[in-house]
Amino acid sequence: MAFPTFGQKRRRKRRSEKAKRSEVGAPPGELVADPEAEASTLSVFGIGNGRHERIENTDIETALAKREEWPLVWIDLSGLSDIDLVRRIGSAFGLHDLALEDVVNTDQRPKCDAYENHTFFVMRMIDTEGRSKQFSMFFGDGFVLSFQESKGRDFEQVRKRIEKGAPRLHTGRSDYLAYALIDTVVDTYFLVMDPLTEKIDRLEEEIFEDVDVVQVPELHAMRRDLLHMKRLIRPTRDALNALIRLDRPWLSEETKVYLADVQDHCDQLIDIDDTYRDNASGLVDLHMTLTAAKTNEVINLLTFVSAIFIPLGFLAGLWGMNFDPTISPWNMPLTQSPFGYPIALGIMLVIAIGLLVYFKKKKWI
Amino acid sequence: MAFPTFGQKRRRKRRSEKAKRSEVGAPPGELVADPEAEASTLSVFGIGNGRHERIENTDIETALAKREEWPLVWIDLSGLSDIDLVRRIGSAFGLHDLALEDVVNTDQRPKCDAYENHTFFVMRMIDTEGRSKQFSMFFGDGFVLSFQESKGRDFEQVRKRIEKGAPRLHTGRSDYLAYALIDTVVDTYFLVMDPLTEKIDRLEEEIFEDVDVVQVPELHAMRRDLLHMKRLIRPTRDALNALIRLDRPWLSEETKVYLADVQDHCDQLIDIDDTYRDNASGLVDLHMTLTAAKTNEVINLLTFVSAIFIPLGFLAGLWGMNFDPTISPWNMPLTQSPFGYPIALGIMLVIAIGLLVYFKKKKWI
Amino acid sequence: MAFPTFGQKRRRKRRSEKAKRSEVGAPPGELVADPEAEASTLSVFGIGNGRHERIENTDIETALAKREEWPLVWIDLSGLSDIDLVRRIGSAFGLHDLALEDVVNTDQRPKCDAYENHTFFVMRMIDTEGRSKQFSMFFGDGFVLSFQESKGRDFEQVRKRIEKGAPRLHTGRSDYLAYALIDTVVDTYFLVMDPLTEKIDRLEEEIFEDVDVVQVPELHAMRRDLLHMKRLIRPTRDALNALIRLDRPWLSEETKVYLADVQDHCDQLIDIDDTYRDNASGLVDLHMTLTAAKTNEVINLLTFVSAIFIPLGFLAGLWGMNFDPTISPWNMPLTQSPFGYPIALGIMLVIAIGLLVYFKKKKWI
Amino acid sequence: MAFPTFGQKRRRKRRSEKAKRSEVGAPPGELVADPEAEASTLSVFGIGNGRHERIENTDIETALAKREEWPLVWIDLSGLSDIDLVRRIGSAFGLHDLALEDVVNTDQRPKCDAYENHTFFVMRMIDTEGRSKQFSMFFGDGFVLSFQESKGRDFEQVRKRIEKGAPRLHTGRSDYLAYALIDTVVDTYFLVMDPLTEKIDRLEEEIFEDVDVVQVPELHAMRRDLLHMKRLIRPTRDALNALIRLDRPWLSEETKVYLADVQDHCDQLIDIDDTYRDNASGLVDLHMTLTAAKTNEVINLLTFVSAIFIPLGFLAGLWGMNFDPTISPWNMPLTQSPFGYPIALGIMLVIAIGLLVYFKKKKWI
Amino acid sequence: MAFPTFGQKRRRKRRSEKAKRSEVGAPPGELVADPEAEASTLSVFGIGNGRHERIENTDIETALAKREEWPLVWIDLSGLSDIDLVRRIGSAFGLHDLALEDVVNTDQRPKCDAYENHTFFVMRMIDTEGRSKQFSMFFGDGFVLSFQESKGRDFEQVRKRIEKGAPRLHTGRSDYLAYALIDTVVDTYFLVMDPLTEKIDRLEEEIFEDVDVVQVPELHAMRRDLLHMKRLIRPTRDALNALIRLDRPWLSEETKVYLADVQDHCDQLIDIDDTYRDNASGLVDLHMTLTAAKTNEVINLLTFVSAIFIPLGFLAGLWGMNFDPTISPWNMPLTQSPFGYPIALGIMLVIAIGLLVYFKKKKWI
Repeated sequence: MAFPTFGQKRRRKRRSEKAKRSEVGAPPGELVADPEAEASTLSVFGIGNGRHERIENTDIETALAKREEWPLVWIDLSGLSDIDLVRRIGSAFGLHDLALEDVVNTDQRPKCDAYENHTFFVMRMIDTEGRSKQFSMFFGDGFVLSFQESKGRDFEQVRKRIEKGAPRLHTGRSDYLAYALIDTVVDTYFLVMDPLTEKIDRLEEEIFEDVDVVQVPELHAMRRDLLHMKRLIRPTRDALNALIRLDRPWLSEETKVYLADVQDHCDQLIDIDDTYRDNASGLVDLHMTLTAAKTNEVINLLTFVSAIFIPLGFLAGLWGMNFDPTISPWNMPLTQSPFGYPIALGIMLVIAIGLLVYFKKKKWI
Repeated sequence: MAFPTFGQKRRRKRRSEKAKRSEVGAPPGELVADPEAEASTLSVFGIGNGRHERIENTDIETALAKREEWPLVWIDLSGLSDIDLVRRIGSAFGLHDLALEDVVNTDQRPKCDAYENHTFFVMRMIDTEGRSKQFSMFFGDGFVLSFQESKGRDFEQVRKRIEKGAPRLHTGRSDYLAYALIDTVVDTYFLVMDPLTEKIDRLEEEIFEDVDVVQVPELHAMRRDLLHMKRLIRPTRDALNALIRLDRPWLSEETKVYLADVQDHCDQLIDIDDTYRDNASGLVDLHMTLTAAKTNEVINLLTFVSAIFIPLGFLAGLWGMNFDPTISPWNMPLTQSPFGYPIALGIMLVIAIGLLVYFKKKKWI
Repeated sequence: MAFPTFGQKRRRKRRSEKAKRSEVGAPPGELVADPEAEASTLSVFGIGNGRHERIENTDIETALAKREEWPLVWIDLSGLSDIDLVRRIGSAFGLHDLALEDVVNTDQRPKCDAYENHTFFVMRMIDTEGRSKQFSMFFGDGFVLSFQESKGRDFEQVRKRIEKGAPRLHTGRSDYLAYALIDTVVDTYFLVMDPLTEKIDRLEEEIFEDVDVVQVPELHAMRRDLLHMKRLIRPTRDALNALIRLDRPWLSEETKVYLADVQDHCDQLIDIDDTYRDNASGLVDLHMTLTAAKTNEVINLLTFVSAIFIPLGFLAGLWGMNFDPTISPWNMPLTQSPFGYPIALGIMLVIAIGLLVYFKKKKWI
Repeated sequence: MAFPTFGQKRRRKRRSEKAKRSEVGAPPGELVADPEAEASTLSVFGIGNGRHERIENTDIETALAKREEWPLVWIDLSGLSDIDLVRRIGSAFGLHDLALEDVVNTDQRPKCDAYENHTFFVMRMIDTEGRSKQFSMFFGDGFVLSFQESKGRDFEQVRKRIEKGAPRLHTGRSDYLAYALIDTVVDTYFLVMDPLTEKIDRLEEEIFEDVDVVQVPELHAMRRDLLHMKRLIRPTRDALNALIRLDRPWLSEETKVYLADVQDHCDQLIDIDDTYRDNASGLVDLHMTLTAAKTNEVINLLTFVSAIFIPLGFLAGLWGMNFDPTISPWNMPLTQSPFGYPIALGIMLVIAIGLLVYFKKKKWI
Repeated sequence: MAFPTFGQKRRRKRRSEKAKRSEVGAPPGELVADPEAEASTLSVFGIGNGRHERIENTDIETALAKREEWPLVWIDLSGLSDIDLVRRIGSAFGLHDLALEDVVNTDQRPKCDAYENHTFFVMRMIDTEGRSKQFSMFFGDGFVLSFQESKGRDFEQVRKRIEKGAPRLHTGRSDYLAYALIDTVVDTYFLVMDPLTEKIDRLEEEIFEDVDVVQVPELHAMRRDLLHMKRLIRPTRDALNALIRLDRPWLSEETKVYLADVQDHCDQLIDIDDTYRDNASGLVDLHMTLTAAKTNEVINLLTFVSAIFIPLGFLAGLWGMNFDPTISPWNMPLTQSPFGYPIALGIMLVIAIGLLVYFKKKKWI
């Protein structure tokens, strides 16, 4: 049997990574590259004054130079194998050692850390197969730095909206761009949640139709996956809450309204998640009870057949005994009578009907 | 078997809608019409100075023009297919893009958003078949804008009360009208809750009378529906709480007393919901235990019959063996004796009675 | 089987009442008499300056007139069929429409509403059969107005204490009288809780002695009733808390100490309730496990008997076959030997003992 | 079977006492002696200026007189039958009527009530058999008044420490003495908790070794007793918290550090309690599953034996039928053949082996 | 069967220790050595001005003398049998009696106590076999005092980082060293959590493959161990929170950022713990349901075999009866007919097929 494993393996690896780190005793703040990390690709976006410039696959010098040219620069690093690159970005923008360590250690919980000159925001992206990857972002006055565990087309829509000249993305403020990235990630959660809930609805219908043991591990996997989703979304919601309450010059009230909207989406997701987890738990109970009822029915049949035919079989056995009827009339009565056999059958029939009536009355069958 | 599905399908559709939105990458604040949305109908009510004017099926220009004529104007839009109409109302009253998006995306959780010049309130209406539809409302100084997912006679009573000249509805203030609409929606929850609780009370009586497997999925459906209700009512209560705490010139202290009364109704509903969900959970346990007890009884019967008649059948089998009694007296004892048969029956009877007494003593039967 | 239904039916009726109200669309604040309400009886108590005057079955004019004569007047209305009476009391003391509606709609949750000139307090009285009725009370400067759903001797002791000249009740302040009424209602909860807890203790002893299926619905009913009690007591406690925190001239610090004592009683009741509900849940589990153990024992017996006698019966069947032993010695061995029968029996005995030893070793019996 | 009943009966009596009080309608603050209360014994301790004086079994006049002589006087009353004594102590120290009522009504929850001139603290002492008795204490400037439901040697160690001249107890301040008494009571909880946890650890080992139905009610009793303990300790902790937050001249910051230490002990006890209750719940589940597994094994045996031997028995029955083989060769085949019997046995053996292989393959055995 | 006992025995001993303490009536603040405590070893580290000095196995005088020489002195005591040593350190640094008692009583919950001149921090170290030992630490202006229940190499990495000249550890401030020690302890939690979670993932796969009763106690042990871990980590997290909120001159804002990072790690651990405990609970349910399904299947087989062959056996028994067919044609029909036997077999076959079809239709098999 193959059951959904929704990001099981990736989670496994990561945890070991953290444990290994403490095994080798890496001091806090020291960046240790994950040997399995994806190759790094750097891209940079300069935005402002109604114009924009997009450079893909560039090097760090070019990227940092753009900072002088544009009111807002968005540097995106996909793949985290190049630790040195991370370190250089960190020193160029004055990022805290611990925050950089969190960027590289890709098993962080979603969170929002407030530093003096920038805000650090960590989220997790999930694809429909349940693989989750870390998305970390620093943003401050005039810059957004995004770090993705692996390259994907996740933010292509945001890039296109910039290129199409969406006015809010061209104000040169970093907060709305940061919002757009966060919003994009949260939106993908709906794409992941949808097939999960559909599956549970389908399972519910199936169980209502006919209980089957294969539904049980599926229900278990659904519950586990929904729990996994919730453990991603709830801290994301809390991080958004912390972000909205932050008082920083690069965070405008106007953008906070948009961030509150993302928070609403998280609430909606948590709501759906809770509803479906409760439903899945109810389905586990339902399955258990329906299975027990099925067993019941089968045992009823067994009991019915046994309770009728075992006594009758005993009676037949009695007349099958080899007592000599010729010695005395006490032995094997009826066997020598011309109507003995039909009378015996009659007796059996009467007993069978009597038992049936008795069981019916006792509501055993 | 047909089980209640209480709004299952509608919920399903909506979720997909949201996921689809994020699939096509619609930017935040952009209104996307749901292709399945109902046709839009606009009606307008002008109220004030002891008079009122009601116009049904009007166009947007007429509706907006009434704003100048009357102290309080209530514009109601049923059916949300005409996105342009929504957009024009939005720009006429200065509504926020995100709020308008929430009006059109009809899968919002109940909430209260406070904007500078108006308050945005979202609720869900439920009909007795469990279909839920969204009701969103903006109200501010001199206007109430209500948006319903589909046309219904839900607010006919409020309209009649205005027409009958109810004094509180003729003050020209928007808050009491908004309260009247909210109150009407919450009142319908009682109409939905009532048959649910009645059904559970009936199920309880049925289970007390005789457990049956068909009660299990019904109990499951009841629990799911009650949970669904609670997930509607609790955020409605929170939204009301937020509304009462708001400090806006168009929200009078006097009306807040009325809103607190609606909040009390929500508390009452949550209380009933919790009580009945706890009761339903208890009934699931009860059902399980009573079913197990029934199985027990049947297994007891099976054991009783088997434990008496299988040994007796074996005895009868012994005397049915074909050892030749004529060769030696050791073979087939009693079979050649004149009273062998009644003696054999006597032995069987003694064994049967002995077993019966033994089982009785062991409390197995 | 007859099971306790602890106020089930009354609760049922009330809920329908509320739903009906929203069906007919009664506007908020409009008093609608319950057609099943009890006939109204009015009594009035004038207290102050060391004297008192008690008038039973009086009319509204007399009652209101007493207000001028006495520092403290206590008007008590039992039975709520006379809506007009309620309305006149309301207008005489300036009571809020919504509060009056709550008086007449006798399915309120316990609560404390603070108005400018009076405090509104709602509780529920329970009799030992689990019927709950509403007790609402207004009190302010110089007056206590109490409304009971049905006439009872519940406050007779308070009346007697006034007549005996209890000093605290003769100060002419309304708060201590209000406290005395609240205290009386909470005290009756102990009278209801006591038989419930006794029943669970008795059930526990019974289950420890011998599990029986009839205990299951009793446990269910106990749990439901304890839950019902808790849903009455917890909001009462919260209402008391709100009352103690109120700052009104007619609420003295001294009386608040007494109200805190009632709150302690509520805490005690909630504690007892929680303990016994947890215990009842534990008993449900215990019952389930002990029943399963009993089934186990019976199945063990069935298996034991079957596993011994079915194989032996087969052996006897073998020797009961009608192969002709005279044709060849291969057919029906032993049957023609003089000691065939005892040898056959010996073989069976050996097999039976062997199986017994094997089962014993496997700990199956 | 005799199961632990951990203070069941005492709790029972007390509850009835409270209910009876409300039955007779005793007004609040009136002291009603429990007819079963223990005889009162008064002892007094004068402490201060490095000296101390201990008088056992004294009368109230002597005890009150000591108040003038010593900076700190500790009056201890064991047994609460002498209501008048309680009343006189109350009036001598200006204690509130309601607090005195709580002293005499020995079913209070642990709590801390703050009065103007004294602090009232209620706890419950437990002995290892689970009997709980009330300990109430008033302390203020220069006095500690302790009331025990029954005489015990519980505070002998505190008395000895005073007599040995422990410096902190000789400062003449009441708070440290009060702390010492509270600490002594909380310390005894460890003595009660220890055998409980040991029993659960032992039960866990037993269940791991062999499940037995007698473990179930023991687990139930353990869970109930741990719950009972928690319901004592948690409010004690809350009362300590309230005490530490109090601002009274007779409560020094220094002593509050000690009280916080007792609070830590309560936290530790709650932690142990929670851990063991969770463990006991897990053991109930474990027991259920292991019992089900045992049933499973037995049913497997039954099925195995039945599925092999019932078909074989049928075959033997076929050859035991009395069709006349001499009439036609179609009747009773093989029975007239010289090797019919071994062939028949061979057929049966093949069927038996075939079934065994089939069951093995299906993993049914 | 041997099951993991994860620190069971050590926990047991400790609890008894505390109870014993209250048995002998040791007054609060008095240090009582645990007779089983490990021998004490003292080591001291002087750090500051870019240099450092490490002395192992020294005596108390040397250790205290270093305090004058170095800006920061770290005294570490492993093994707590030498009570006098603890007492002398206590008086040298002015530590509170109650804190010292907590150092020696090695069953404390993790906590942070704030004293005037130093901060007291208690944690628990766990090794991979689940043995937990107490780590207590005082730190203030220029000193860190660490106490370990038993000697281990736990802090060797911190010592090496000091010796390698890690800049943050050479500032001469105590807070970063304290942080380094706390961080080291929390890091080891990951090493303990990792095999636990791996085991559950492995168990999940095993259960998905084939349910077996031995998985049940393993699941129970996993749940218990995860709960044990959580009870360590959650109060550690709270203690860290308290530490971060403290306002003391020796606690810099800069170090608090690092402490917040440790808090994040605790959150991560709690998250993993919660996820895996929920998963383990789900697996217990899954196991139960799959086992029930297996029983079901076996009972189905039993019923199938019995329901087919018991009636057929009865039929065969009928024809095995010894009625005399020669007396009348009514006796033993077919037995004297040439095709009687095949006809009888045919009848049986028809009945068997009929039953099969019926069962199939009823979905019983």
